[in-house]
Amino acid sequence: MPKVDIEYTDYVSEMLDVLGSPGLLLVSADAAGKPNAMTIGWGTIGIIWGKPIYCVLVRPSRFTFSLIEETNDFTVNVPYRDMGDIVAYCGTVSGRDYDKFAEKGLTATPGRRVKSPIIEECAIHYECKVVHKNKVIPAELTQEIRDKSYPGGDFHTVYFGEIVAAYADGDAGERLASG
Amino acid sequence: MPKVDIEYTDYVSEMLDVLGSPGLLLVSADAAGKPNAMTIGWGTIGIIWGKPIYCVLVRPSRFTFSLIEETNDFTVNVPYRDMGDIVAYCGTVSGRDYDKFAEKGLTATPGRRVKSPIIEECAIHYECKVVHKNKVIPAELTQEIRDKSYPGGDFHTVYFGEIVAAYADGDAGERLASG
Repeated sequence: MPKVDIEYTDYVSEMLDVLGSPGLLLVSADAAGKPNAMTIGWGTIGIIWGKPIYCVLVRPSRFTFSLIEETNDFTVNVPYRDMGDIVAYCGTVSGRDYDKFAEKGLTATPGRRVKSPIIEECAIHYECKVVHKNKVIPAELTQEIRDKSYPGGDFHTVYFGEIVAAYADGDAGERLASG
Repeated sequence: MPKVDIEYTDYVSEMLDVLGSPGLLLVSADAAGKPNAMTIGWGTIGIIWGKPIYCVLVRPSRFTFSLIEETNDFTVNVPYRDMGDIVAYCGTVSGRDYDKFAEKGLTATPGRRVKSPIIEECAIHYECKVVHKNKVIPAELTQEIRDKSYPGGDFHTVYFGEIVAAYADGDAGERLASG
């Protein structure tokens, strides 16, 4: 089924539900175009600087971190709920050691406006160009979060991605809502 | 009409549409409880650290900045579209000089879980406790954004507010969707 353009605000409730469980797939690529997918359960969406923005958080230790630093863009892909095993896999192994697209039979379709590809099998896609980044500041976190999320440090970089394209399967809204 | 609890993901598409135009109302209060409302057109919503989070950006020069620094919480209120004149007013004058609630006949209903009140006349309310803050880093912005949004500096602080309560008018979804 061909993908259709959407407003970035379309299906946001469904997208956030999937973000909560089982998670979304953050795709980046190296300079040669080789893609990698990382599972994310954290992210925010909205408007900053008058632009639609998707914020994602990536730890410096992650392979994805080096890729985004290299190409300065990424895509966020919303999987269907029956893709839970793929989402779990992409959150378990590192792209340094495994070609996750090959291992899971995922199709990397070239991005329309960014160097990172999308995952064709997913429901919704946001193509994002990094327009700002900053870092989680340890001293400005609550003690609870510091203890729970950062026992080993490795504090996240927050990437602010301008959503330069958003599109979805024509029936993505229904399929995500129904299951 | 009594307010009903909602999931933070409910009506998010509608909320983001109103954020884009005419804007939302960010409410904070001083230590004595005196509230102030500031219009915002920027913000993001999602999940970080396993918690529902509303991110808002406030310039250090703003009165709201001093209030959030004092109480460490805020509420985000989604107005109905026919409240456009109130939203415009709250984006024009400073709470240092005017009591915006009194001037516009707004009702400050105490927050359920935060010190900042809500605006009763609005459709949807998110009560937020600041769990992290950092700053927009000038060197990490695109030139375009730096030129357009920061000709005078005054770079925003990004407040990450954990959404500790979310509720709305029972008919907020329909009324916001219908225009």
